[in-house]
Amino acid sequence: MLTDVEIAQNTEMEPIIDVAKRLGLVEDDLELYGKYKAKISLEAIKNLEKNDNGKLILVTSINPTPAGEGKTTTMIGLSQALNKLGKKSVVAMREPSLGPCFGIKGGAAGGGYAQVVPMEDINLHFTGDIHAITTANNLIAAMLDNSLHQGNPLHIDQRQIVWKRAIDLNDRALRHIVAGLGGKANGVPREDGFDISVASEVMAILCLASSLEDLKKRAGRMVVAYDYDNKPVTVDDLKATGAVTLLLKDAIKPNMVQTLDHTPVFVHGGPFANIAHGCNSVMATQLALKLGDYAITEAGFGADLGAEKFLDIKCPQAGLKPDAVVIVATIRALKMHGGSHKTDLNNENLDTLKKGIANLTKHIENIHKYGLPSLVAINVFPTDSFAELSLLKTEVEFMGSDVAISEVFGKGAAGGIEMAHKLLKILETKESCYHPLYSLELSIEEKIRRIAEEIYGAHDVVFTKKARNQLKKIKALEMENLPVCIAKTQYSLSDDQTLLGRPQGFDITINDLIPNMGAGFIVAIAGSIMRMPGLPKVPAANGMDIDENGKIIGLF
Amino acid sequence: MLTDVEIAQNTEMEPIIDVAKRLGLVEDDLELYGKYKAKISLEAIKNLEKNDNGKLILVTSINPTPAGEGKTTTMIGLSQALNKLGKKSVVAMREPSLGPCFGIKGGAAGGGYAQVVPMEDINLHFTGDIHAITTANNLIAAMLDNSLHQGNPLHIDQRQIVWKRAIDLNDRALRHIVAGLGGKANGVPREDGFDISVASEVMAILCLASSLEDLKKRAGRMVVAYDYDNKPVTVDDLKATGAVTLLLKDAIKPNMVQTLDHTPVFVHGGPFANIAHGCNSVMATQLALKLGDYAITEAGFGADLGAEKFLDIKCPQAGLKPDAVVIVATIRALKMHGGSHKTDLNNENLDTLKKGIANLTKHIENIHKYGLPSLVAINVFPTDSFAELSLLKTEVEFMGSDVAISEVFGKGAAGGIEMAHKLLKILETKESCYHPLYSLELSIEEKIRRIAEEIYGAHDVVFTKKARNQLKKIKALEMENLPVCIAKTQYSLSDDQTLLGRPQGFDITINDLIPNMGAGFIVAIAGSIMRMPGLPKVPAANGMDIDENGKIIGLF
Repeated sequence: MLTDVEIAQNTEMEPIIDVAKRLGLVEDDLELYGKYKAKISLEAIKNLEKNDNGKLILVTSINPTPAGEGKTTTMIGLSQALNKLGKKSVVAMREPSLGPCFGIKGGAAGGGYAQVVPMEDINLHFTGDIHAITTANNLIAAMLDNSLHQGNPLHIDQRQIVWKRAIDLNDRALRHIVAGLGGKANGVPREDGFDISVASEVMAILCLASSLEDLKKRAGRMVVAYDYDNKPVTVDDLKATGAVTLLLKDAIKPNMVQTLDHTPVFVHGGPFANIAHGCNSVMATQLALKLGDYAITEAGFGADLGAEKFLDIKCPQAGLKPDAVVIVATIRALKMHGGSHKTDLNNENLDTLKKGIANLTKHIENIHKYGLPSLVAINVFPTDSFAELSLLKTEVEFMGSDVAISEVFGKGAAGGIEMAHKLLKILETKESCYHPLYSLELSIEEKIRRIAEEIYGAHDVVFTKKARNQLKKIKALEMENLPVCIAKTQYSLSDDQTLLGRPQGFDITINDLIPNMGAGFIVAIAGSIMRMPGLPKVPAANGMDIDENGKIIGLF
Repeated sequence: MLTDVEIAQNTEMEPIIDVAKRLGLVEDDLELYGKYKAKISLEAIKNLEKNDNGKLILVTSINPTPAGEGKTTTMIGLSQALNKLGKKSVVAMREPSLGPCFGIKGGAAGGGYAQVVPMEDINLHFTGDIHAITTANNLIAAMLDNSLHQGNPLHIDQRQIVWKRAIDLNDRALRHIVAGLGGKANGVPREDGFDISVASEVMAILCLASSLEDLKKRAGRMVVAYDYDNKPVTVDDLKATGAVTLLLKDAIKPNMVQTLDHTPVFVHGGPFANIAHGCNSVMATQLALKLGDYAITEAGFGADLGAEKFLDIKCPQAGLKPDAVVIVATIRALKMHGGSHKTDLNNENLDTLKKGIANLTKHIENIHKYGLPSLVAINVFPTDSFAELSLLKTEVEFMGSDVAISEVFGKGAAGGIEMAHKLLKILETKESCYHPLYSLELSIEEKIRRIAEEIYGAHDVVFTKKARNQLKKIKALEMENLPVCIAKTQYSLSDDQTLLGRPQGFDITINDLIPNMGAGFIVAIAGSIMRMPGLPKVPAANGMDIDENGKIIGLF
């Protein structure tokens, strides 16, 4: 089989304007970035408000393993298959960060014959959204340090600065720095650090904003520090709100591209799901709902992280009502959850599979707690045995969930027909009784306990002394009404990445709580979560190249 | 009179494709970024190689003062005027950095009725070139620190790391930092710092590259550190060359926009001229030469910095042969050079004007040393008196230079007709005998002396101990054949920014020498030159905003 980048390069794309026209858009609704990428104008979005909404389908997965699940690939293939059946299906998905792209080989635009193109551009800079976010984040930091340098008129307590700088690369050396060194002319020395841009609150507000006005309000509310009276100092206080919004004026517009089958895809916003809320922008999802009869979207990592945040943060904030959830799993990954070693996955093993299925069934249980019907998509591999597939289907159906085979990686739309038919049947026959897991009236502590116990299956939640103090602070600042965004390892239902399958009797430890007033949630740090990845011993960047004719190698 | 941003917003732009078509380009040569911005494809550029070159005109100025000179405005207006006379004139100019945009009020896309549009986009992100440069620079830094972290296989001497990180903002707190703190997992602690992106060598190589292949070669040659044997460690050694080139694959393509009169402009690459070589990209200049009968370009700050580097670095490297030089001056700025206070500029003062003209005449002398004819453009203000204008004209003509009035700020093309006529006459009647100031066979020390004595008018050049050691190192590394790029204050012909007019008897102190092997020059640091500006007490960002209809205020 050809590599992803070869398949992508062998595909003749359609001008994006033609893809858009099939959705009913006109040329003036688009702002082209070359022939194959476009932003949708804010005016066009406004004009679409009167349209009815299509059905909203979330694609999520089991907890990821090194064996790979193929969630994005399955989502893209599902939409290709629906279109092949004559249904108007539109994908809304996240845009990739450059950090992982240069770090660990692997893109974020699907794979095989279920890809979004032009994948080289989507993976590199794209339409500049993340650069705009990085710049907005760092302008705030520069204005904060300038305020300290110019006599500190806002009485910022340097020990209580919570705003960090950002960069869209994996760069461990920037995690902890001391800035402002070199004498009086060079600012006020203080501890600081860089997070990866996709973990920043600016990314979160861009993804949660419903309009430019809403974005501006969210930007102004963001807390950068506390003053000597422990009062929050905001972006508004720094007089940076207008400039930040100006920097994001184009980034807020959803980007349109196409699948290999020339079906429409919005790729917009890309917060990580372990350290942020993990969903593409609200505006892209709404656009997919207004333009498509079926809007297919995803949330990062496993259902405990991405889907939970989609269902408890994004949907309530944006007034979205999902209709069904697809949970992607592979036999190989489930066998790893059940104890198989990575090198043993080619061999049939019904024991480890059965044990590993417990991870999947927990996620099915969870989705049903939200009142949503589920479809398990088995992303099949040639090494999967008939017995393994039978076992998995039986177990899933026993849970009251539908199940379908997906072969979209190797076959494109044709490999997703079964999945598409089953999804359509669910949408016809099963009604969504969606409701969030918790009421916003609960306390922050109660919300965290609810998620940990109901979704993760934890025995108890332990709050460190720092977290306890933060709980008090949040109460004093009257921020208790916000939802919770838990930062946790993606590899396990617990906060210990080595506990695979369906761990029992574990505690979740909350180390810190960070109010993200712009995003409108409280980040709860469970375990030790890295907000800035590092590069591996041999970074993927080492193998990348472009020749004099523009041919790219090593990107995937 | 309306503000710049109001004039720009009141102008109906033409689709950039129409502007391009008038130059003989076709739709497929363009990669659109919205309707009014486009990149020119590398294929189109290759196809144009067979075209004849037009005339090459450099626009430079006296040493800048707080009174303002209007070099960019004059350049744009001159091209508008040439087009009004029926001449095919194309501008090639630099793209602005976000740093100064948010720092000190003032854009870089001209002013009044001589502007380049869409100015809001050009000043904010534009087509993402500078973000790509920042990312490429910082990927190299991350791979360098990763190499240290992963056992230092290249034997990099941490005390001899010369590569710095970059950010496209004014942020003094990042000038000097300590990175890699926080324990073993977070890299190797070391001193580091950020330069503004436009001062980076990546910006320099993008601007000096003649093609994607040349860019890749230059990228690979860049020195990031020295090893324990004092041998250079390069981007090639880090295996980052391919990834860096890939990140710059679109940034290398020149950007096309238009003046208020819909005449063509290439805006591409923007190195500072005090700390870098200060010229737009070679590819944009060559494109202007291939497409226009007249290619009008500029170089940053005064002629001692920008023009010197244009004539001694850019032209020899790119094989360009300029035909004439326009030197922009204002009566107000010349009076400041002669000792007038900023608050006294509205009053006639022939004494300070006469003294200040010495700054201008020195620059005329210098341009003639390169064998080039000169035209002084007086950017007039309503407060200039008849006697002042007469005095200035007489003095300029006495120097053997032509002189013309420019009123393009207030009148657009109509205000540049005299200037355009005089330029056309020069091009018809005076031949360019252009040659660089020095031969590359001279030693680095001799080259620096040549520039300091001939162009700045210095009495002597003093090398600090550090600079002496670097001279030896450069000799040992056989880098003596390169040209010199002097980093110096823009405000004075000397390295002391308080010495205005035409200072005499001063020495130039060279503190350090930095080989930029990718750019192909040796940077000589004269005086203390800031490679990262800071924000002022009240940053321009404070006054910026965008309303819910997308209307922008405070950008200019």
